[in-house]
Amino acid sequence: MKVTILGCYAATPRSFTNPTSQVLEINNHLFLIDCGEGTQVQLRRNKIKFSKIKHIFISHLHGDHFYGLVGLVSTFRLLNRDNELHIYGPKGIKEIITLQLKLANSWTNFPLIFHELTSKEPELLFEDSKVSVSTLPLKHRVYTNGFLFKEKEGDRKLLIDKAEEYNIDYTLFKSLKKGKDVVSEDGKLIPNYLVTADPPPAKSYAFCSDTVYDPELVPLIKDVTVLYHESTFLEDQADLAFPTKHSTAKQAASIANAANVEKLIMGHYSTRYTNIELFRTEASEIFSDIILADDGKEIIVE
Amino acid sequence: MKVTILGCYAATPRSFTNPTSQVLEINNHLFLIDCGEGTQVQLRRNKIKFSKIKHIFISHLHGDHFYGLVGLVSTFRLLNRDNELHIYGPKGIKEIITLQLKLANSWTNFPLIFHELTSKEPELLFEDSKVSVSTLPLKHRVYTNGFLFKEKEGDRKLLIDKAEEYNIDYTLFKSLKKGKDVVSEDGKLIPNYLVTADPPPAKSYAFCSDTVYDPELVPLIKDVTVLYHESTFLEDQADLAFPTKHSTAKQAASIANAANVEKLIMGHYSTRYTNIELFRTEASEIFSDIILADDGKEIIVE
Repeated sequence: MKVTILGCYAATPRSFTNPTSQVLEINNHLFLIDCGEGTQVQLRRNKIKFSKIKHIFISHLHGDHFYGLVGLVSTFRLLNRDNELHIYGPKGIKEIITLQLKLANSWTNFPLIFHELTSKEPELLFEDSKVSVSTLPLKHRVYTNGFLFKEKEGDRKLLIDKAEEYNIDYTLFKSLKKGKDVVSEDGKLIPNYLVTADPPPAKSYAFCSDTVYDPELVPLIKDVTVLYHESTFLEDQADLAFPTKHSTAKQAASIANAANVEKLIMGHYSTRYTNIELFRTEASEIFSDIILADDGKEIIVE
Repeated sequence: MKVTILGCYAATPRSFTNPTSQVLEINNHLFLIDCGEGTQVQLRRNKIKFSKIKHIFISHLHGDHFYGLVGLVSTFRLLNRDNELHIYGPKGIKEIITLQLKLANSWTNFPLIFHELTSKEPELLFEDSKVSVSTLPLKHRVYTNGFLFKEKEGDRKLLIDKAEEYNIDYTLFKSLKKGKDVVSEDGKLIPNYLVTADPPPAKSYAFCSDTVYDPELVPLIKDVTVLYHESTFLEDQADLAFPTKHSTAKQAASIANAANVEKLIMGHYSTRYTNIELFRTEASEIFSDIILADDGKEIIVE
C-alpha cells in the first residue's frame, strides 16, 4: 500500500504548496482522492500514469478539494483516454463538470460515470474481490465524506515444501489457499493448517478531511492501518477549529489514539504555518506513530 | 505598457508550462486576460498584487483559457477582498462560476459583476478617461473574442520654459495641455503649438487567441502597437491549423504584417514542440519584430 501526497495544504494553492489531492495504491488499484487545482501537474511531477486512474473520490465541494477535477477530466479527453472514469462525490459535482464540458463543446470520448453522494450514513461505493471503498460521513461546513479503503483478506499462503511432504496433488493447491482441508494422494485427510500459513494482514486506509473533531468517527475507523486526518490548526489557533469545522493537531492525534490506528498521517495545514514540524510536536503528546504529509511525499506501508 | 505572460502554452498544464493567462498593465490599469488552471500560482510567482486586478477578460470557454478562474475568485474571497471584480466572457461563464460558489456555500463578500458576451461584432466593454477595451470577434471552434486595449491620447506636453518666456499665467497651463490657445499676461494671443509638444503616442494592445487564420481581423487591429497572436503550430503541422481552428507561426506573422503592427508576440504553442525558437524562425520570414511569449516573461513597451 502506498500513499502519494500530491497536495496537503488548506485553502488556496501557493507558489510552493498545493491543495488537497492524494493517490492511494492498494492491491493494484490506483485511487485518486480529492483533486485541488493543479492536481494534474502534481500527477505529472510524481510520474503517475493518468490512464491508471479509474476512480476519483471527492470529499466535498470546497475549491481546495476539487477545482482541479474539470481540468484533469479535460486532459484525459485530450490524451484520447478510452477507459471508464468513475467519479464519486457530493450531489452537484455532475452538474459542475458536465456544464463546463458542454460550454466548451468538449464532451469526453470515454465513459464518464458520476456517483453522486447524499447519504449521511456510511455506504459502500466500490467493491471487487480484493478491495472495498466506503464513505465515512464527516462533519464540516458543507456535506462531506471521508473514505475508507479496505483490502480483503487474501488467500492463505501455501507452504509448498509441506504440501509436497504430505503428498498433495497440485490440483488441490487452490483449495488449500482457500483454507480447505484436502485428501493426500495416499488417502489421508490433511488439515489445512499443516500446509498453509496465514495470509498477510489486510491493510486499510481511512481518509478524513475536512472534518471537525468528531469522536463519532472512531468506531468507523477502528484499527485501520493508516489514518489520514486533517489538522488545520495548532494549539495557538485552537479556537478557530470548531467554528470553521476543522481540527487541531492534538484533535487528530486523539482520534488516531481512540481508534487504535497503526499510523497517523497529518495534513491540510493552514498556510499560515511555515514550520509543519510543530504539528508533529503537538500531536505526539497523544499519539506516537505520526507521518507529516508534504507535497510529493510517498508513504509506503509494508 | 507592460505585458506579463503567466502562461502561453496550449491544451493542458504541464510540469513546467502553463495554459493561457497574461496581465496587461496599461495607463495604471492592470487587466487579466484569460485564466487557465494555475493562474493564481503564476500571479504569486510573478509578484502581482491580487487586489490590483479589477477586470478579467476571458476569450472563450475552453479549459486552457479559464479553468483557473473559479479558484482565483475563491482566493479573492479568502483574502477578504472588498472591491468590485468585473468578469467579461462568453455567455455561460456566470453560471459556471456561481454554481460552484453556491455548491461550496462560499458566496463572495465582494461585488462580482459578470459581463456576458454574445455579440459577433466588436463591442466596447470598458472605457474611462485613459483607456478603452473592446472585443475582437475571433473564429475558433467555440464562441471566442480577442480584446483590443487602447490608450487614449494624453494631454499635450507643456513646454514650461516656453510658457514662461511667453509670459503665460500658470492658471492657463491646464488649457494649454488641452490644446487651447491662450492670452498671455501682456495681452497677446499665444497659439498652442508655440508652448506645447505632442503627447507621447497612444499605445494599443491586441490579444488574439484562439483563432484560425483570419484576414478579416486585419482592419480591426490596424497599426496597433503590440499584437499577441496565437501560433499553435509550425509548418510541419500546418494541415492541423484549419480543422482545429488554430494558426501557424507564419499565419500569425502574416496577420501582423498585413495589420502593420509594431511588434508581434507569439504564443499558445502546442506542447508537442520543445524548441519554441522555431516559431520565430518560421515567422520571421514574414515579419521581423517578434517576441516569443514564455511563462513568466515580462514585455515592456516604451
